Amino acid sequence: MTAVELSVFFKPHGVAVIGASRDPQKLGHGVVRNLLEYRYTGPIYPVNPHADEILGLKTYPSIAAVPDPVDLAAIIVPAKHVEAALENCGKRGIRSVIVTSGGFRETGPDGAEREDALRRIAAQYQIRVIGPNCIGTIDAHTPLNTTFVIGMPRPGEIAFVSQSGAVAAAVIDWARGSGVGFSRIVSLGNQADVTESQMIEAIGQDGITRVIAAYMEGVSDGLEFLEAATRTARQTPVVILKAGRGRGGAQAIASHTGALAGDHAAYEAAFRRAGILQAHRMEELFDWARALAWQPLPQGRRVAVLTNAGGAAILAVDAIEEAGLDLAPLTEDTRAFLRQRVFAAASVNNPVDILAGSGPATYALCLDALLGDETVDAVVVIQTVQDWFAPISLAEVIGEVATSPLARHKPILAVIMGLASTNEATQVLHRKHIPNFAFPERVGSTLAAMWQRKQWLDALSVEPLPSKTLAYDQEMGKMTIEAGLEVLSQRNGQEAGWMSPEQVEMLLAAYHIRTPSMGLAPGIEHAVPLATSMGYPVVLKLAAEGVTHKTDIGGIALDITTPRQLQKTFKSLIKQASKHIAEKDIKGIYVQRMVRGETELIVGVVRDPQFGPLVMVGTGGTRVEMMRDVTFELAPLTREQAENMLDRTGAGRLLAGYRGSPPADRPAVVDTILRLAQIALDLPPIIEIEVNPLIVMRDGGGVQAVDARVKLDRNDAER
Amino acid sequence: MTAVELSVFFKPHGVAVIGASRDPQKLGHGVVRNLLEYRYTGPIYPVNPHADEILGLKTYPSIAAVPDPVDLAAIIVPAKHVEAALENCGKRGIRSVIVTSGGFRETGPDGAEREDALRRIAAQYQIRVIGPNCIGTIDAHTPLNTTFVIGMPRPGEIAFVSQSGAVAAAVIDWARGSGVGFSRIVSLGNQADVTESQMIEAIGQDGITRVIAAYMEGVSDGLEFLEAATRTARQTPVVILKAGRGRGGAQAIASHTGALAGDHAAYEAAFRRAGILQAHRMEELFDWARALAWQPLPQGRRVAVLTNAGGAAILAVDAIEEAGLDLAPLTEDTRAFLRQRVFAAASVNNPVDILAGSGPATYALCLDALLGDETVDAVVVIQTVQDWFAPISLAEVIGEVATSPLARHKPILAVIMGLASTNEATQVLHRKHIPNFAFPERVGSTLAAMWQRKQWLDALSVEPLPSKTLAYDQEMGKMTIEAGLEVLSQRNGQEAGWMSPEQVEMLLAAYHIRTPSMGLAPGIEHAVPLATSMGYPVVLKLAAEGVTHKTDIGGIALDITTPRQLQKTFKSLIKQASKHIAEKDIKGIYVQRMVRGETELIVGVVRDPQFGPLVMVGTGGTRVEMMRDVTFELAPLTREQAENMLDRTGAGRLLAGYRGSPPADRPAVVDTILRLAQIALDLPPIIEIEVNPLIVMRDGGGVQAVDARVKLDRNDAER
Repeated sequence: MTAVELSVFFKPHGVAVIGASRDPQKLGHGVVRNLLEYRYTGPIYPVNPHADEILGLKTYPSIAAVPDPVDLAAIIVPAKHVEAALENCGKRGIRSVIVTSGGFRETGPDGAEREDALRRIAAQYQIRVIGPNCIGTIDAHTPLNTTFVIGMPRPGEIAFVSQSGAVAAAVIDWARGSGVGFSRIVSLGNQADVTESQMIEAIGQDGITRVIAAYMEGVSDGLEFLEAATRTARQTPVVILKAGRGRGGAQAIASHTGALAGDHAAYEAAFRRAGILQAHRMEELFDWARALAWQPLPQGRRVAVLTNAGGAAILAVDAIEEAGLDLAPLTEDTRAFLRQRVFAAASVNNPVDILAGSGPATYALCLDALLGDETVDAVVVIQTVQDWFAPISLAEVIGEVATSPLARHKPILAVIMGLASTNEATQVLHRKHIPNFAFPERVGSTLAAMWQRKQWLDALSVEPLPSKTLAYDQEMGKMTIEAGLEVLSQRNGQEAGWMSPEQVEMLLAAYHIRTPSMGLAPGIEHAVPLATSMGYPVVLKLAAEGVTHKTDIGGIALDITTPRQLQKTFKSLIKQASKHIAEKDIKGIYVQRMVRGETELIVGVVRDPQFGPLVMVGTGGTRVEMMRDVTFELAPLTREQAENMLDRTGAGRLLAGYRGSPPADRPAVVDTILRLAQIALDLPPIIEIEVNPLIVMRDGGGVQAVDARVKLDRNDAER
Repeated sequence: MTAVELSVFFKPHGVAVIGASRDPQKLGHGVVRNLLEYRYTGPIYPVNPHADEILGLKTYPSIAAVPDPVDLAAIIVPAKHVEAALENCGKRGIRSVIVTSGGFRETGPDGAEREDALRRIAAQYQIRVIGPNCIGTIDAHTPLNTTFVIGMPRPGEIAFVSQSGAVAAAVIDWARGSGVGFSRIVSLGNQADVTESQMIEAIGQDGITRVIAAYMEGVSDGLEFLEAATRTARQTPVVILKAGRGRGGAQAIASHTGALAGDHAAYEAAFRRAGILQAHRMEELFDWARALAWQPLPQGRRVAVLTNAGGAAILAVDAIEEAGLDLAPLTEDTRAFLRQRVFAAASVNNPVDILAGSGPATYALCLDALLGDETVDAVVVIQTVQDWFAPISLAEVIGEVATSPLARHKPILAVIMGLASTNEATQVLHRKHIPNFAFPERVGSTLAAMWQRKQWLDALSVEPLPSKTLAYDQEMGKMTIEAGLEVLSQRNGQEAGWMSPEQVEMLLAAYHIRTPSMGLAPGIEHAVPLATSMGYPVVLKLAAEGVTHKTDIGGIALDITTPRQLQKTFKSLIKQASKHIAEKDIKGIYVQRMVRGETELIVGVVRDPQFGPLVMVGTGGTRVEMMRDVTFELAPLTREQAENMLDRTGAGRLLAGYRGSPPADRPAVVDTILRLAQIALDLPPIIEIEVNPLIVMRDGGGVQAVDARVKLDRNDAER
């Protein structure tokens, strides 16, 4: 539905340009020029009350005067006139409008108001609007170019979606210089109406595009994005360069989970789940896009390298190994075959080095043999600058062997090195859909991206993606949500957003997460009976308002084994605390049964504004931020996804037992991850949960949440 | 001395080409063609007994017949004739020879013999030889081109040294395509005589080169390289792309230190010490080289970004922050000045976004203001593709402002984005020595490399580099080396290379590294008296031949507190061991005083074949390889370098105390690092030392080497 609706932006029956200009310096001139120059074949209607003709085209005084067929309008008038222009489009029955004009949300509150007005008009007339503040759309197949930027890529299979007009313009220029073909290029501007999610999904269904590359600064709606991207990625690879990964604002963050998540962890988790490949540089974005659009996915991680120079091959091998792929071992048959066909000094092990002096025919024979080798999943063909034969001959040969049935499931990447002498060969390779790279090291991340996609697709076919109705729901039953709501309803309006330790204990108990026995001793006379009732050894923890990290001020004492030691420690904790904290804020000392286990983890959840609950697990204790051995996943998550989280961290891998230390209760950890995620899903007022340490016992012994903190949305807490 | 000697390879008075050919398909033709075509102005003497003239040049039947002046010869004849040709050069008095021919060490044992013969002749006649198996030399200033590769870079300030001829050829082609100028390009081939160290040092003194870029696969002599590179880097930046960083062979490695060091840790430590900047991709190599050759070093880490589009700036900011640099805060004065000169909607915070529609004059004013701001150490100027003005105008403006005194210590990098429309602007920028990048993210690692060099140079001026006569020697006195040799002399010829625990204990004692009391109990009857004499609690460790990781087979028991527990555990350890080990190999049980401390480190030394002892420190215990929280440094090292090692690891930073845990005895750890390094320096037969765990007590409490292993060179051990 969306796809059909949005297709008018790329295949209109007629295009009106509102704000068309005779002045070549004006953007409204550029759009008309591009429509003409880049051969849009439908009618073009410049709209300008002060001109009769522009670039030889009859010009109309208003959109109302434009005849049929017209189903797309580009508006390039000053911001204050855009509202009226859009309304007139609505009245004229145009349902697809590109607002190129700037001067909206990006300029401040007045602009934001103007943008809201546009959104209202669009809703009223059921107009789909791209922009405002964008450079428009390109479809190289239609062909259609509604931008004012000089240059038109040749038709191809790669689509580019951009949240920055400047980056889109740079890509148009790069496409023109590099000769890489594109299907569609679209600049989304402020996304007053059409969002990145809708556009990505629509392009995925256009029947031409084989890979979607995108420059993104954020998503308009996290869950909508996740669903649209996941649906799209099942059919069409999506590669995204996410800008704004930086350290972000200097807000005070009280939990480790929040501090370690930063601004980017939720995006990384969302991309991983949706099967989106995340590039880190523009070069990578298009290296990966070319390979994914043109070549089949590898069936495994074993790469063969065919080269005529050792040095170049080493660079490729370094990159391949650093990207987590392997060198193919090659069969003895292949080596024997090669040995008969190469110079005596050549290497028939991988990398296969046929040495300088070998020509295109030797490349053809060797490439064919490598493609036929069952230990090979992908081949990289390297040729260094030489004067033995024209690089274009090798380009032709690679292109031809690549059509062999042997290459049906084995990607081939080419590295015809250099720049000045190789341009023609690169053009030939690209026409034949073999991506070429000027230097060998770029093949590493490219093949890794292809292999990552293969694995994601394979996992899909095994197991359906988790939906909002979480499998885990059934498993746990609905027993907990009511219990959780009950706890939340009991909290009395505390000042800060943190729940009291007693409330946290109740909440965790409602979700069957074990905590050691604990009680508050307001005075020293309450402490000994408490400890006696729970049994020694115990831990003492300061109970005070506004203390985030108790260990920082010496507010914790471990392993208290006798009443005498208890009394002494109680006094010294209070004394120590009074150096830092006003006496009225010291509520006493919590006495907690001391727990020993195999290892200490941290498990936390923070609520991401875009993607909802983001779950963290990793090395716990006091060293969390120093070690940074943590990983993230979005909730809801399946048991398998929770297991994968453990596999991604050192702490998680250690649970299996290591060098003589016995295995710890990994299933109980997985349970805890799922239960904490469930709390956050069930109870939206909770914006942060952190259990640190989660003490893990030996296998079968379960876990204990020794220290836990839960934060409520402040507004909600004050309600 | 070396520099003067090697300069003939780039500025000869006359060049003979032995093996010159009339056949355009032959390399011996290409060399003569390149000398002519790329305008070498001295006499060129083709040598070929079967031709009278080649490419219009008089040809000589032998090198003996070549008249003066001639001081450089290029030999391009089949391998078997090279020996005679080199000898004839010697007789003719030529002292500089490039052997382009292949067919030597790279082809196997026969070739290696031929190469040895060349080396003998070179020594006999005092000839300096580049090659064999190389593509020769280029000096773009002389000009001289002794290669057969088509293309000559324009004269510039960047030198390129390559251990791969193919990579050198690709760089020549890239230089021609990109228009980046070079001073010298040299392909070193098999390095039978002239090494990478000698060449790098010679080029550093040529008076033209401002940065040396190198492609390296290895060093011919680690210590020679370290000294030559360090001397060179004090004057001239050196950037190296080291190939062959891979996982390397599948040799069994018994120690953590060896496994974690891999093949590359010694190179990284050597490069860091020598002030060499290590690039990881060819693109980085020349991005950094251009910036280092052309722009001043920044005085700090604060970067200002000036842009006409937000999206492009975000990519730059991400890269800057990920490279560990900061955004400059800008002064209120600067912001006020900018506010008067840009559009109302522009941003005068960093990144300064002057918006589309601003022209070169606005860029000039803003760039000048940013250079004048005391909070700014470097400026990145970004321009996205647009039609408002010609990109070349901005290139001229940036080039002009860059000559201002304000820019004397502040580097300027340009990002005129795109490819097709920006070529002319890039050429202008490069003529004016402003590096230009097609996409913004490349500025991050480039500025980081410049800042890294600045810091290295600053550290140099504070403290002299450690020489072979280590400061620590004096500090420790010579008391230990004799003691160490004494221990080594006492060892009896054990089968494997590992010293016995008793010998290790003596060795560590000789170097004043404390170990807990320990004794071997061959039978259960010896164990209790041993424990009683040292005091409980104790640790029991299996004493057996050929067991590397005792914990893997349950061969360690901790925290034995009573004689009864000791006896029981003794029996169960022996029983457990006999499942895995032949009875004759079980020597008994070591009883060791149990030590408790604040934290566990690993400290190790492996002897690198090139760079000598390589010291490691990091998180110890059983989790070493899982955590990989380790760092390396070459010995000898200063106290400050040992301190820096601790600062580079999580475990080292934790020694200062963290979240209420008390500080541990960091000075004692530093001492231990230095002492272990000293052992390896003093006693060359030792090839591996590993202390794990090194238990660190509270501040002032010292350290204890609880488990230590020392490996001797096998040959030496068997001697």
